Amino acid sequence: MKKLITVALGGNALLQYGQKGTFEEQLANARRTSKQLVELIRRGYDLVVTHGNGPQVGAILLQQEAGASQVPPMPLHTCGAMSQGLIGYMIQQSLINELRAASIDKPVATIVTQVLVDRNDEAFHNPTKFIGPWYPEDVAKEKEKLGWTMKYDVGKGWRRVVPSPDPIAQVEIEAIRRMVNAGILVIASGGGGIPVVDEREIEGVDAVIDKDLAGERLATSLGSDIYMILTDVEKVAINFKKPDQRFIDVMTLEEAKTYYDEGHFPPGNMGPKVKAAMRFVERTGNVAIITSLDKVIEALEGKTGTRIIPK
Amino acid sequence: MKKLITVALGGNALLQYGQKGTFEEQLANARRTSKQLVELIRRGYDLVVTHGNGPQVGAILLQQEAGASQVPPMPLHTCGAMSQGLIGYMIQQSLINELRAASIDKPVATIVTQVLVDRNDEAFHNPTKFIGPWYPEDVAKEKEKLGWTMKYDVGKGWRRVVPSPDPIAQVEIEAIRRMVNAGILVIASGGGGIPVVDEREIEGVDAVIDKDLAGERLATSLGSDIYMILTDVEKVAINFKKPDQRFIDVMTLEEAKTYYDEGHFPPGNMGPKVKAAMRFVERTGNVAIITSLDKVIEALEGKTGTRIIPK
Repeated sequence: MKKLITVALGGNALLQYGQKGTFEEQLANARRTSKQLVELIRRGYDLVVTHGNGPQVGAILLQQEAGASQVPPMPLHTCGAMSQGLIGYMIQQSLINELRAASIDKPVATIVTQVLVDRNDEAFHNPTKFIGPWYPEDVAKEKEKLGWTMKYDVGKGWRRVVPSPDPIAQVEIEAIRRMVNAGILVIASGGGGIPVVDEREIEGVDAVIDKDLAGERLATSLGSDIYMILTDVEKVAINFKKPDQRFIDVMTLEEAKTYYDEGHFPPGNMGPKVKAAMRFVERTGNVAIITSLDKVIEALEGKTGTRIIPK
Repeated sequence: MKKLITVALGGNALLQYGQKGTFEEQLANARRTSKQLVELIRRGYDLVVTHGNGPQVGAILLQQEAGASQVPPMPLHTCGAMSQGLIGYMIQQSLINELRAASIDKPVATIVTQVLVDRNDEAFHNPTKFIGPWYPEDVAKEKEKLGWTMKYDVGKGWRRVVPSPDPIAQVEIEAIRRMVNAGILVIASGGGGIPVVDEREIEGVDAVIDKDLAGERLATSLGSDIYMILTDVEKVAINFKKPDQRFIDVMTLEEAKTYYDEGHFPPGNMGPKVKAAMRFVERTGNVAIITSLDKVIEALEGKTGTRIIPK
């Protein structure tokens, strides 16, 4: 049986620093990303792909507001579903073209994915994740009447904050499992998944789920051999940007926990990635790798990247 | 083996006449629709579901324009992908809830679907399908400079027209086939699919594909036993709205062709539905049914609806 890698693509897989986010830019980036992914398949691995959606869902939210006088805006969770269609399409088309160029016959499918969260997750009492545009104070007050939580984003204005609860499971995990078993290259759980609660029925909630933590749920549930988190740095560092900064090649779960608890990995950046990697290693006994998109192959060969190993 | 029905949902499955198109309205309609579909599954059929996207992609297009000063608008084909995420999510969640209520254990998955068209299709020389908002003449002239084709929509203003080429095949058909074989309830080819051409590589094109004709490609390729086209009327009529109007219970392929050629089925309405049904019957030798959403079961039992049969 082939080894299964679940790959979580960072924002730079679709948008590079300073780009505006046109379709052409994003498609070109998706293409570059797909080249790397197809190389993994060429080397005999099976893949499941997940991805972020920050800039894209931000754009969709802006568009909802801008068009609000003409068409009803969709709620945040539904904007997440739209972003899965948008990004899934670009990655899926790019993968199909790259697979064909490599003469590999493998179907590709993006599946709309809901991710279960707990309404009692403490994140719902303490929304922290800024989303969408900045507003002047008077508009922010109006937004609060809609039930939004607004916070002042220093120097920029008022902005909506939403909870970022812990992902429990992909609602569609059984469909995804069957698709992987059927030899399909699956793109799933985009943007961390559409957040839903399950209180007798499944229902969307306005929240944002960290895509690396949601990716861990996917990777673990599918029994992946490796969970790869791709970002814009080649290796994880401790004492980041300090004189004694040191890049890590390998760390055991215990070492990772120690560094994590010592605060080496900031919450808005490397924190969730290391946490997701640690969870995967703890729950499966397998290896997680954090590296940059263009070092996928070298990292898999152990030449670069940061590996988190059981012990 | 279970019998497979491919169901094409009309616009009223998600939006009813006079509704604004809020999320709550659309979700409630998706729920009502899902009840009918789950009843088919309860009776032992396997289902593949496709759907239109007219009002939803119209809203997304408006939002692209409204937000254009802040974020780059996505092209029409990409808006189609977004609408697949949006609508797929609502139907998928509703189906999951209804299946659970019926104690049926069946995974549901929406797959982002591209549909191949021919760049040499005559539709590309003669765009006919109005999409998006109406503009005053001076704005329309500006839009023409972007490469859009603008036509005057009598009494309403200038509007973009796009080609409506014939669908050739779902690019993701092999993935869909494997998903159906794996027991997954698949939602696919939404809005007629994302139109793409295949000239060495697959690439999106700005066009609109009729969802019933694309649904035929899906139904036929999967070897469906029945292709059901659900709309807002219970039966197809000849001499529609004339004194000698007559509803049809059954028509052979030959009878359907005769009525079609006599102009009984207008192009903007029943025409593509009857054409799609005829193609399915001709290509598979199986039966197509055109009826209304709330008569699905009765139509399947032969109590109502219009059946198109081989002979």
